[in-house]
Order: sequence, then structure tokens, then C-alpha cells
Amino acid sequence: MKLYGDRQSGNCLKVVYTAQRLGLPVVWQDIDIMQGQSRTPEFLALSPQGQVPVLQLEDGRVLAQSNAIIRYLARDTPLLPADPYLQAKTDEWLFWEQYSHELYIAVCRFQMHYLKKPKAAREPWRVERGEAALDLMEAHLSSYEWLVGDTLTIAHIALYAYTHVAAEGGFNLQSRPSVRAWVARCAGLLPAEPDV
Amino acid sequence: MKLYGDRQSGNCLKVVYTAQRLGLPVVWQDIDIMQGQSRTPEFLALSPQGQVPVLQLEDGRVLAQSNAIIRYLARDTPLLPADPYLQAKTDEWLFWEQYSHELYIAVCRFQMHYLKKPKAAREPWRVERGEAALDLMEAHLSSYEWLVGDTLTIAHIALYAYTHVAAEGGFNLQSRPSVRAWVARCAGLLPAEPDV
Repeated sequence: MKLYGDRQSGNCLKVVYTAQRLGLPVVWQDIDIMQGQSRTPEFLALSPQGQVPVLQLEDGRVLAQSNAIIRYLARDTPLLPADPYLQAKTDEWLFWEQYSHELYIAVCRFQMHYLKKPKAAREPWRVERGEAALDLMEAHLSSYEWLVGDTLTIAHIALYAYTHVAAEGGFNLQSRPSVRAWVARCAGLLPAEPDV
Repeated sequence: MKLYGDRQSGNCLKVVYTAQRLGLPVVWQDIDIMQGQSRTPEFLALSPQGQVPVLQLEDGRVLAQSNAIIRYLARDTPLLPADPYLQAKTDEWLFWEQYSHELYIAVCRFQMHYLKKPKAAREPWRVERGEAALDLMEAHLSSYEWLVGDTLTIAHIALYAYTHVAAEGGFNLQSRPSVRAWVARCAGLLPAEPDV
């Protein structure tokens, strides 16, 4: 399989983490989004959405959307619970991550980390929602060791991707001890330096 | 099963359409989001995310996130392809709908339809991305009859929910004949007036 991705993108790292955890060989193809490489005619022919990551299977077929990709890779493995309800709760976190977490925390990180904007330039409504997302995780993780189930699943990989670098988007994990402990638990089960 | 929802919310209608199509009995519980009923202590105890829809199963367990709910209901039915790749392409559309369609088209509709704001009050960046989402659908549907597979699936139900009322958010389907034809195909397979 070939993974088209940007090395600084948490959405791309989700796929790397999942593949490495499952021992699946993936060839990395660099797409530098800051250089417009995800908007070239060649890339749009591969994936009209113009977003990374994109996974190309051995037979040439492609998959886009980070959480759809990791769900595909994790099917029938311990990274996706077999129980229908726990699987649905995993999906619930995956959709929540994209809609209520990534859009605020990853976008603020993009503005500060990629675009080198100052922390003060972040949009207040985006900061507020990012803080609310981290508060919700803190509340949940103060009662439960994992977001869903009792071991590492793709729900954790998806949320770890941008939570563990939330500080690069100006968000403070110091005041959220349960999130920090959970980040450490995830980190202990994932490669420290993804081989991409 | 009990569905907590708002009658004007496309995200809630997705669940109604899916349940009705599958012949699953669902008891509707009105949650008027304009009256703050999704932010009460009682509702937040049910679902800390404070969003509708929320599905409560017979045993009391709950599921949130519209696309996670319809995926759960559709498992092992014709509404979700059994083939792993087609299932992943279905997921791809579900994640794309939440991240690149709902946020622009449904939010503009919310501003105009719920909050009664004028069309000119829509945020330009949101309009631009909503138009881009409809353009992507038009491009795809000008080559394929369905978004994925060759029949109605939850990918279509998820995207139909807000596409068929896009005009209420100030978006024009007249210039997108393939989207209009697809909306009509979906409408022919879904209840005209969901019984909620």
C-alpha cells in the first residue's frame, strides 16, 4: 500500500500509527500541502477531495478521509472492537474527533505551527470549542481509563493524533491531568518516532 | 429504541430515514435545541456532547453522532455494503459529509432557517466551502448514479439530509443537474414525510 501524506499532519500520522501497530507495510509518498501538492491535477485525479491522507491499495484503488482509512485497516483486528455497540461507540468518537476536536485544535495548530502565526491570532470561537473538546475528554478520562473499551483502539489513535500536540496549537494540557495520563498511556503503545 | 431529536435537524432525520427504511421501531423524543433542551443537566447526563440526535437502546445504553448511529443501525443490512472496500468508501463519504459538507451547508441553513438571518449574513468562507462541497458532488454524480455502490446506502441518506434542503441555506441546486437528479432518486426511496 502507498500512503500519500504530509509528515506534519496528525491525520496522516493516524494512518502511520495504525499501520505500524498492525505490522502492515506502507510506502510513504510525501505530499507537501504547504507547497500545494495536494491541489495539483495529478493529486486531484487520485482524490478529488484534495486532502491528505490518501491510501492507495495494491490494486490501485484509493481511500481518503483519515478515520475511514484507519477503520478500514483496523477491521477484524483488536484495534476495532468486534462487539457492535463498542464498535459504534468507537465510531462515535471518530466522528466527534473530526467535527468537534480536529476542526478547532488541529486548525489552531496549523495556524501556529505551519503558518507561524502568533497564539493571539487564533479565532476566539475556535479556541473556545477546542477548550471545550479537551474539557469533555478530561471529564470522560477522569472516570474511565480509555475512551471506549479497555485497550488501545482506533478511537484513541484518532484522538491522540492532535491531542498530544495540542500545545502546538496553544492549548494547555497541564490543567488536564487525566488527558495527560491518557496521552502517556497511548504513547507507550505507539511508536515514538513513526517511521515515515 | 428512543430517539432524542429536533424535527428540523437533518442530522436527526438521517436516523429517522434509516430506521424507517429498515422497518425499525423508534420512539421520538422531542429535543428543541432552540429552547436549550440539548444543554440541560438531564440531557448532558445522557450525552455529554450535548448534541442531537441521541439514540437510546432498549437496554438504556446510548449512542451519539448521527453517522455513527446510522452506521450502527445499518450494519448487516443492504444500507451498508458488505464488501470491505465499499464499506470503507461509504465511511469516506460519511466523514466527508460531517467535515466538508454539514459544517457549511447545514450551518448556513441553521443561520437562515432557525435563526432567521438574511442570506447576506452568511460567512463568505462558509459559503465558499459549501459551494465547493456541492461542486464535488456534482462532479462525482455526473459520472456515477450513486456516490458509492449501485443502490441506496447510508452514504446517500447522510448526504441527502442537508443537500435536499440546501436552498434553505442559500445554496442553489438549479445549476447542478446531477445533484438534483440524485436528490430525486434518493427521495423516491425515502419517506416523503418522516413519521416523527
